[in-house]
This record gives sequence, structure tokens and C-alpha cells, in this order.
Amino acid sequence: MKFNTHIQNLPIYEAGKPIELVVREFGINPKNIIKLASNENPLGTSKSVIKTLQKVAKNASLYPDDSFYELKDALANLYSVKSENIVIGSGSDQIIEFALHAKTSDKNAILVSGTTFAMYEIYAKHTGAKVYKTQSKEHDLNEFRKTYNEHKNEIKVIFLCIPNNPLGDCLDASEVMKFISEVDKDTLVIIDGAYMEFAKFKDKKKAINPKDLISKFPNALYLGTFSKAYGLGGMRVGYGVGNSELITALHKLRAPFNITTLSLAAAIAAIKDKDFIKKTLKNNLKEMKVYEKFATKNGIKFIPSYTNFITFIFDETKNATQISDNLLKKGIILRNLKSYGLNAIRITIGKPEQNKRVLGELKKEI
Amino acid sequence: MKFNTHIQNLPIYEAGKPIELVVREFGINPKNIIKLASNENPLGTSKSVIKTLQKVAKNASLYPDDSFYELKDALANLYSVKSENIVIGSGSDQIIEFALHAKTSDKNAILVSGTTFAMYEIYAKHTGAKVYKTQSKEHDLNEFRKTYNEHKNEIKVIFLCIPNNPLGDCLDASEVMKFISEVDKDTLVIIDGAYMEFAKFKDKKKAINPKDLISKFPNALYLGTFSKAYGLGGMRVGYGVGNSELITALHKLRAPFNITTLSLAAAIAAIKDKDFIKKTLKNNLKEMKVYEKFATKNGIKFIPSYTNFITFIFDETKNATQISDNLLKKGIILRNLKSYGLNAIRITIGKPEQNKRVLGELKKEI
Repeated sequence: MKFNTHIQNLPIYEAGKPIELVVREFGINPKNIIKLASNENPLGTSKSVIKTLQKVAKNASLYPDDSFYELKDALANLYSVKSENIVIGSGSDQIIEFALHAKTSDKNAILVSGTTFAMYEIYAKHTGAKVYKTQSKEHDLNEFRKTYNEHKNEIKVIFLCIPNNPLGDCLDASEVMKFISEVDKDTLVIIDGAYMEFAKFKDKKKAINPKDLISKFPNALYLGTFSKAYGLGGMRVGYGVGNSELITALHKLRAPFNITTLSLAAAIAAIKDKDFIKKTLKNNLKEMKVYEKFATKNGIKFIPSYTNFITFIFDETKNATQISDNLLKKGIILRNLKSYGLNAIRITIGKPEQNKRVLGELKKEI
Repeated sequence: MKFNTHIQNLPIYEAGKPIELVVREFGINPKNIIKLASNENPLGTSKSVIKTLQKVAKNASLYPDDSFYELKDALANLYSVKSENIVIGSGSDQIIEFALHAKTSDKNAILVSGTTFAMYEIYAKHTGAKVYKTQSKEHDLNEFRKTYNEHKNEIKVIFLCIPNNPLGDCLDASEVMKFISEVDKDTLVIIDGAYMEFAKFKDKKKAINPKDLISKFPNALYLGTFSKAYGLGGMRVGYGVGNSELITALHKLRAPFNITTLSLAAAIAAIKDKDFIKKTLKNNLKEMKVYEKFATKNGIKFIPSYTNFITFIFDETKNATQISDNLLKKGIILRNLKSYGLNAIRITIGKPEQNKRVLGELKKEI
């Protein structure tokens, strides 16, 4: 059977290996497995969310309130915007998908950083769009400016991953705002704030305020997620914040019931549990220093990270694939960044005891 | 901001009204609300699934095993096919979306029945494709043949909703198989079996066997869902069964982690609970007769239904919108089919006590 031509060469996203796979492949007891590969919250799920989920489990047969009224209301309060400025997605991934299906096609292009979240490129290619990348791996706004100005008529969407996954680098909010002000009003600028909670806790200069952003720029879309700081990676809830005209267009592409009944309840409960977020952010900042110290001591290159992970970049004397494969056999799942073209390993900042074991085992491999 | 042109006129799916909305709008105690509007399982969620969900709630922070290994294995066993013949979606809706993005564009078309599940048309229009509809509301394969032969070069996907939502009619399996054998091998025929469990329980002649289907026709795709008989409407899990080449193409369009960690566990548990399914099917068949008797007695037209709902079609002396609005104020949520161009109400077959109250109140309105 013939398929649409742009499907043939679609790259496939390589997800972090799940615990179940390591159990199946290496017969390791799940209790002895440490997974710091997918930037999940190492503190797990907040107790109040678990309680909520256990209570609403009986509602699994019922479709959710498809208006997502209560969740939008909670997010609108959190960001001092209106419900009409919010669209809910099955992860912020899905908002990326909506935005690209609304703006791009095989007649135009997107612009992304040299090394950034792989799904921008994959979803763009779903629509047949071309992908321009800056040369530097980290975000460099002067390179963005240069490429944008060269291909202004073609580029319809620009992605800024603030802070950047999988490298951890983060532009200052003021630089980002200045850049958007220079961009044509018909070019959509997507600020992916999946890790923003960690960035602004570390350094206020990184804090992008969605309200400011969307009131100044009708062509800006802010993305947030419940998968990281909120500890709901498995529940698939993300959101977009934008001008109401933009949000209305994205809503047209949203399938009914795109998040589950239990996900909806979990996200509403997660917003309320401020203590859990605070604990998460504090553990992250404290334990990040343990990794930085280890890297410095062992001559491993890393980019100061504003996220809940750190990326160790190895020189040619070391092989990231071999190192991560060896650790995998010991039940330690980290993220080999080979698919990003890097000789590097991304490690989610875990709990103190996890980090100790990971660094102990890593030490033996380098 | 300008958006892709086909986005402008996209129709929006009108979902059944959620209980939360009726609580908000009419101030009715949720305990007194009967929702038989969205073909959810009236027996709710199976006890074993609730137990599973409560147990895995703590894993909400962890992404699911993105290979969906265990669920695919369970489905492969259920249908005597291989895991490579299965793709998992966030509801079978999402498989429809994958299939259309793989096959259609603004250069071709789909073919559907006169009155059928609205999402076929909506997703087709996302890709810019044209939509041909047969004249009859119920599925009429001779009309399908006629329209298909007239526009053979254009039509890339044909949808057969077996049994058909929102009317309840159902073709025999042998007719369906014969029809597919006549269709060009490059035309994808999608058999939407969302309600198949109910149809084959009522009449074996309706049973389409996915294994037979896909071994005979590499251009056939069978869709199933956990939302109806399995009682997991709120968890968003559906699946497609097809030839491995077709499934591989659909997988390319699947976003990582497209169902939640809890949905995955719930679906695996639901397949195991055969007793719950049996109870569901028995209640449905028994209570369907109560509705048929009521309709006959009160001169209301209906199409014999092979699903878990019945559609009452009113003559011009009655107004379905007014009737359903009046019932809504009493806390009874049914599905007005005005958006399908019908003066009709679709009622999910409920539990005996629910059906009694619904019919009692309906009697007062007609």
C-alpha cells in the first residue's frame, strides 16, 4: 500500500528505556533498578495526588469533562490569565503537534536550535515542513536571527526550548523577549517551558512570565507540562498559554477527550500541592551540585543546567554508548544521547541515595 | 496570525454533556444525575480494574513502557494475531487520525456512510481531504460500491462502522468481507469495531474476526476500543489490528507515550476480567428490549441496535432538542442528535433502575 510520501522518512523518537524492559532483558529485580533516564520526578508522585487517583479510580469508565473547565481555571489562576488563553494537551508534546498542524506544511519551515527536543523536528516532518537548525548546539539567539532573516518567508514557527532539553542551557528571559519583538507577527514563536519551574527556582533572570509574554506578543505560545516538576510524567498532561485567537485555532485540532479522566483529576490535585513542588525543586538544586562536583573532579565536560538533569559530555577517550550499556546491565538506566549525535549521557537528578549509587558505578566506567 | 487554510472551516466534535456541566449549570446533586449520553459502560469500571488503578496510582510519575509490550501481547492473544499486527492509540479515535494522516491529503478523499461517527469526517478534514457520503443514513454497501466506483482514483480510505454509531445498524460480516474483496488494494478499508462486542453477542453473523480480516486483506484495518464494553471510556485506550506493513506505517505517526501509565495497567487488567464483560453484555441485551418495547408501545421509530445504545427517531410532531433539554433540567443526560442532522435522541442502555427513570421521564415529554 502507498502512504503519503513524507511518512516514509519520518524519524522515530527514541524514548528512555523503561524499567519493564530492563527487567525483561536482564532479569534484574525492579527494586534494584534506578531509572534516571527520562527526567521523571525522583520524588515520585505527591501523596495528595496518589490519594486523589485512588479516589477517582472508580470513574475510569466515564469520559472526562471535555471542556477541562476546572483544570483550565486552576491554570488561569496560576498564571493570572483567562481560561480562554489555555489549551490542554496529552503532554505539551501534543500542543507542539497542534501548533505545527495549524501553521506548517510542505510549503514552509521551522527553526530550532542545533541540539534540542527531538519532537519539534518529528512533528514538523509530519506536516512535510522543512527544518532549519542553528549551528551551535546550545541556543544562540544571534544564530537564530541570522537564519531567520535568511529564510524569513519560509519559517513559520520558531522553537525556543527554555531551558533546553537535552543540554540544560537556558537563555535569560529578557533576551527571549527582545528576540520575539524582532520576529514577524505571522511567525509563531513557541517557548517550551517544560523545565521552567527548575530554571526560575535557580535563577530569577530565567523566569518567563506567560502573562507578559502573551500580552506583548500575539504570536507567542508558552508551553508547560505536569510531567516534570509536578511529578505526573505517566499521566500525559501539558498545556499551552497564548492569545485567545491562537488558542481558538489550536482547539480546532484537539481531539475530544485528549486527556484521561484520571489525568485531569491528578493535574488539578498536583497544582494544589505546593509543598511537593518546593521539595522537588530543593532536592534538585542541592543534588545537582553533587553531579557538578563529580564532573569537575573527574574532568567531564558539562553545561551548567537549569533543568532537573545534567548532561555529561565525554571526550573521544570515552564512549557514552558503552558506558550507558554497561550501567544498564547493572540496572542503572541513564539516557545515552547518541540519537542526538552526541557522545554524552543525560542523567536525571535523583534522590541522594540514587545519585550516590549512580556516581559510584559511573566512576568505575570512566 | 494566518493559519493553514483547511483549519478555518474545521467542524468541531460535539461531545455528550458531562455530569460536571449539569452540576454547574442546573445545580443538581451529582447523585441524582443519570448520564446515558456517551455510551459509557453503565456498570462502571470493573472491580479488578479499580483495584489495579489504586495499586499503580503511585506510578503516575513514571512514563509508561512505550513499547506497550504487555498490552500488545494480551491483545495479540485475544485475537490470535502477532504483536506486530497491533498499534495502540489514545482511544481508537487516534488510530483513525494516524490512518488518515498516513493516507489522505488535499489531493484525495474518504468515503463514509450518510450518518456515522463524526470524527471520520473531522480527522479527514484535518488533512484537507474531501469527504464523500452515501445517501442513506444506515450503511448500504451498494451505495458504497456506486460512489466508490465513481471516484475510485480519489477515494483512499473507506470507513465502515460495524455496528454503526449513532444509529445502531450493523452489516453482516460476510457482506463486509465481500465488499472489501472488491476494493482496490491501495484503498484502505477501516472497520471500526468500537461496539463489536455487543453486536457479536447479539448475533454471530455480525462477528468480524480481525485475524481473518487482516490475513485476507492487507488493506484492511480493524479498530477496537476499551471505552465501551470494557468500561474504560475515561482512560482513552484503543487499538488497530492490521497487516504488519500497515501497522509499521501507523507507528511512525504515533507520538511517544500516547497512553498513560495508568491506562496501560487498566487495559491489561480489563482484558483479564471476562466476567465483567459477560455481565455487561447480558445487561445490555436484556435492557435493550425494555427500550424497544417502550418505543413500539409509544409509536417511536428506532433502528434495531447492535450496540449499547438505542436511537429514538421522532416524527415532526416532536422536537428532540426540546425533549433532551427538558430532561437535562431534571438531571437526565441523553444525546440529542441534532448535530448529526437528525430529530433523534441516542440513549445509552443503562442499568434497570436508570432505564426505568429515564423512560418514566421521557414518557412525560412525548
